[in-house]
Amino acid sequence: MALPRSAETRKRIMQAAIARFSALGYNAASVDDVCAKAGVSKGAFYYHFESKQALFLGLLEDWLAGLDRAMQAATKPTVPETLMHLTTMLPMMMGSAQDRLGIWLEFWLQASRDKAIWRATIAPYRHYRDLFSQMIKQGIAEGTLKVVDPDATAQAILSMAVGLFLQSVLDPKGADWQKTAKQSMQIVMAGMMKTRP
Amino acid sequence: MALPRSAETRKRIMQAAIARFSALGYNAASVDDVCAKAGVSKGAFYYHFESKQALFLGLLEDWLAGLDRAMQAATKPTVPETLMHLTTMLPMMMGSAQDRLGIWLEFWLQASRDKAIWRATIAPYRHYRDLFSQMIKQGIAEGTLKVVDPDATAQAILSMAVGLFLQSVLDPKGADWQKTAKQSMQIVMAGMMKTRP
Repeated sequence: MALPRSAETRKRIMQAAIARFSALGYNAASVDDVCAKAGVSKGAFYYHFESKQALFLGLLEDWLAGLDRAMQAATKPTVPETLMHLTTMLPMMMGSAQDRLGIWLEFWLQASRDKAIWRATIAPYRHYRDLFSQMIKQGIAEGTLKVVDPDATAQAILSMAVGLFLQSVLDPKGADWQKTAKQSMQIVMAGMMKTRP
Repeated sequence: MALPRSAETRKRIMQAAIARFSALGYNAASVDDVCAKAGVSKGAFYYHFESKQALFLGLLEDWLAGLDRAMQAATKPTVPETLMHLTTMLPMMMGSAQDRLGIWLEFWLQASRDKAIWRATIAPYRHYRDLFSQMIKQGIAEGTLKVVDPDATAQAILSMAVGLFLQSVLDPKGADWQKTAKQSMQIVMAGMMKTRP
């Protein structure tokens, strides 16, 4: 399906940004560099993005939106099955994150000195905490999970996912991460399922 | 207890480094800046540290050694009690990490482009994985834990701890992190204890 022209320009700018940020670093790459690589005018750039910072946040949102779509597509008949299936997504997440690790570190460093940007980068945690909490409630309602505290359980699962994700990106060869993710989820689920997984 | 003179100099250099790195950033702060702040000669500096990079790794080791000592001191009569007690350490870890967050991000950014340094920064994960694995084995031997896979369980606990730590440092006001750590540990332990915690 062809994108409308404006959406295609936006996509081209974002792809050029990943390439230039990776090659030069986030600070060293200028809006001019990105425009040259994308083959767009500065007018077109600023029509889509207010600043280089807004462009970075756009990249982050884009990555998270992809993750959301993949999570939606992972829905299985029961919550325990869905949770186990989500662990198979780790290699895909690792791949797309590793390309961007340097950019992320550089951006977070800048964000750590700017409160508004900082808030935008931590918002996804709360989004995923809510999403897992809803899943736990659904699991209790469908009768596959014991009556546990949905928010606390969601937070435990999210922390484990964040920790696994971070370690797998920092140390890709340190373990079989997909197997590790599966085993970790089974350990958490052993305490919350009505029948053992 | 007074430190020997050489150890005191080393400590003074490290304290000066934290102050200068925090104020100027890791890249912008020079060895000269650190020496001036510490009131030591460059000769004394290079007697203790080969380079600014070695100094940073020294700071990281120092932080981890403090964590190890605190974990040793946290030992309780049984493994489940020790694991629960460890969750009370999070606020202490958060406090010392937040002061250094900017420095860490900057250093990791540099490390992500240097394989040898990178390995030094990921080594602690493997150390803690082994440490938790030993604890799980001990818990099985003492009869408080079911016969679970020690390495997989250790990894699940470590991932959760890393995720909780990262989230608490990035978003200190996002939750009551000590309570969250306690609840998360209880959820993991529910599946592995012979009697429910």
